[in-house]
Amino acid sequence: MVDALKIGIAGLGNVGAGVVKVLNQNADLITRRAGRPIVVTAASARDRNRDRGISLDGIAWEDDAAELATRADVDVVVELIGGSDGPALTLARRTFAAGKPLVTANKAMLAHHGMELAQIAEIAGLPLKYEAAVAGGIPVIKGLAEGAAANRITRVYGLMNGTCNYILSRMEAEGLDFAAVLADAQALGFAEADPSFDIDGIDTAHKLSILAALAFGARIDFAGVAAHGIRAIARTDIAQAAALGFRIKLVGLAEVQDGQLFQRVHPALVPIDNPVATTMGSLNAVVVEGDFVGRLFFQGRGAGEGPTASAVVADLVDIARGDVRPPFVMPVGALAAMPRAPAADRQGRYYLRLSVADRTGVLAELTAVLRDCGVSIESLVQRGTSSDGDATLVMITHEAREADVLASLAHMAASASVTGQPVMMHILDF
Amino acid sequence: MVDALKIGIAGLGNVGAGVVKVLNQNADLITRRAGRPIVVTAASARDRNRDRGISLDGIAWEDDAAELATRADVDVVVELIGGSDGPALTLARRTFAAGKPLVTANKAMLAHHGMELAQIAEIAGLPLKYEAAVAGGIPVIKGLAEGAAANRITRVYGLMNGTCNYILSRMEAEGLDFAAVLADAQALGFAEADPSFDIDGIDTAHKLSILAALAFGARIDFAGVAAHGIRAIARTDIAQAAALGFRIKLVGLAEVQDGQLFQRVHPALVPIDNPVATTMGSLNAVVVEGDFVGRLFFQGRGAGEGPTASAVVADLVDIARGDVRPPFVMPVGALAAMPRAPAADRQGRYYLRLSVADRTGVLAELTAVLRDCGVSIESLVQRGTSSDGDATLVMITHEAREADVLASLAHMAASASVTGQPVMMHILDF
Repeated sequence: MVDALKIGIAGLGNVGAGVVKVLNQNADLITRRAGRPIVVTAASARDRNRDRGISLDGIAWEDDAAELATRADVDVVVELIGGSDGPALTLARRTFAAGKPLVTANKAMLAHHGMELAQIAEIAGLPLKYEAAVAGGIPVIKGLAEGAAANRITRVYGLMNGTCNYILSRMEAEGLDFAAVLADAQALGFAEADPSFDIDGIDTAHKLSILAALAFGARIDFAGVAAHGIRAIARTDIAQAAALGFRIKLVGLAEVQDGQLFQRVHPALVPIDNPVATTMGSLNAVVVEGDFVGRLFFQGRGAGEGPTASAVVADLVDIARGDVRPPFVMPVGALAAMPRAPAADRQGRYYLRLSVADRTGVLAELTAVLRDCGVSIESLVQRGTSSDGDATLVMITHEAREADVLASLAHMAASASVTGQPVMMHILDF
Repeated sequence: MVDALKIGIAGLGNVGAGVVKVLNQNADLITRRAGRPIVVTAASARDRNRDRGISLDGIAWEDDAAELATRADVDVVVELIGGSDGPALTLARRTFAAGKPLVTANKAMLAHHGMELAQIAEIAGLPLKYEAAVAGGIPVIKGLAEGAAANRITRVYGLMNGTCNYILSRMEAEGLDFAAVLADAQALGFAEADPSFDIDGIDTAHKLSILAALAFGARIDFAGVAAHGIRAIARTDIAQAAALGFRIKLVGLAEVQDGQLFQRVHPALVPIDNPVATTMGSLNAVVVEGDFVGRLFFQGRGAGEGPTASAVVADLVDIARGDVRPPFVMPVGALAAMPRAPAADRQGRYYLRLSVADRTGVLAELTAVLRDCGVSIESLVQRGTSSDGDATLVMITHEAREADVLASLAHMAASASVTGQPVMMHILDF
């Protein structure tokens, strides 16, 4: 029998405990697949005595996670502390300094420091692996970096935040407002007490910046991701979209246009025949479009103890098998620092919803604004008057330039005929 | 610059020509991802002079494919000849004898000789890679073997034949009969002149036997796959299924039950909320269910020049990166020779369609047969009388034992009240 691969785990929340469970429960199977046993020899967490449903017998304890890196009985460090900086980053640097591979589920750390860490790992010839950082249990890092390696990737997008997809799915299924579903999700533990990282799109932006780097051979540019969340979505938007053949999803989208990188997280109307649209509840989905393979679609559980631990252990099996590749497919020096593509020139169809005063001439006024901005209307629905005397106007534009649509919205928002903030969403015509 | 990885391609049909195109068109990108250039140095095919839309300049020619294996300017052989035996198998054996890795898209050869080839490759420490053999461009071999490596896989199933999915999709969309769509598909080049490998489920069975071995750590048992095709499906079945919330798909399904391997290819009713059901046209889809990751879903193009070449080149990139693993995840000696699970004891719901004489007492007679066999009915629809005086009876059973359902069918088929052959299909309640 070959020597076991000895693991030090930093962070024993759900995912860390899950990794211990997977390695225990499927030990024989994993040993055969990895070619050697994979065993947890040391761990660190804030509270040693919390009941996690796992035994820590035979696992050495460190109060300071950073000490895991230099332990003689640790071959590989698994970082599950979280947070872009602080102890996670310290541990990552120490792990490479100690000449050991790192496995992490930490998208925030990678989004902010991925290039630095990849550079250090590359110079030392060490694996830095992070399958669990994007879309949980779905092997999309592997699918993109290795499975689609033959292709010039033209676009990558998907649903990478289970909390948002859960909220939007329940708003649709139960006809509820955002605030009601969020409160219930928090009560049920499906949303954080401070949900802003999820519902404002930051978490998706972290993940998208990692996928974009892999897809396009670009340096990670998290600051270049425009992130818009789902707070402004009303149940009427969901109903209107459904009537028009769409579902509203929080989509992270990255494309390369003329050597420029476009990255955005935003609620979008996804055509119902796109498998992203039928990805419901807390499921995640990622689409990769390549010049030879066409559209690849991956769907599965994006979070939770079991799925995330599954991805962490897949990375450990790769390391046990001696698989060492540059963390972002190619050497950091070969990754392009791509200029950001301006959103203004993007072409697409848009969904617009306005509350308007229910009086003569309003429609003529607003359609004139759109015409003057060069935006033409494909369909328009005016819905009955609400209790406060307003009507709802829902429009789908023809293909239009984004800057023109935004200009028309600014004009309309300033009109006395328009009550409340207009809502605009992108239509994903692909 | 590191030395190029030099490829010899046997077979220059669509896929072979596609591999040359991918390696030419994306040469810079692939070099960066693979860490070295990947170049085609030699080729072999039946006809040297056919116009394939690629230049063969600078590519050495062999009339006998087997000679590629021993050429000094070939590091890796790509086998795209096809066929389970003959020149493909000869080439595969010679390639390993010459100490070189093999990449193949040949599911028939693997289904029949995969264990022998894996054993030879393993002893020589050589890669045998075959991402293109199952589900074309979808990286499902990698997703299953590596991405899901942490999991005890409980079930793997999917749509792995684009021709069948295309035919069934068009039957539904256009309300046509099987024979009409098949003839049109043949005229359009979407189905072979002899379509039996596709429409009788043999091609799917080849692929399923490979997936089952990977999923369950079992030896390939192609002979243990019961294969049923789509010839008997009528448009009325598709319409009836739709009315009940299902789509009919040709599904390859493998499960392990109590240490026994169940493998079957059959048309089945898939619930419309399963993403397999919304996989239309020539797309393929594969579901992998694991004990920690839950349900993983992969969808994409299962055939064609670009997608299949994409998978072949992904294998070449892995080889260029020095990734050597046992071809079936674990050493051949560790693969279990699993006994076959009997179908008779399987529990499930079933769809039954019968043509019956439209006269008093028929329904009482047939429902009594079902009762006597221990099969209870969940729903029953009798449809109007046809021009020849028959009525159509469509039933969904409650959960029942498969042997009991088959026994009831045999009794009913023998009844003078039943005209024509009864149709039975499985319902995939997962």
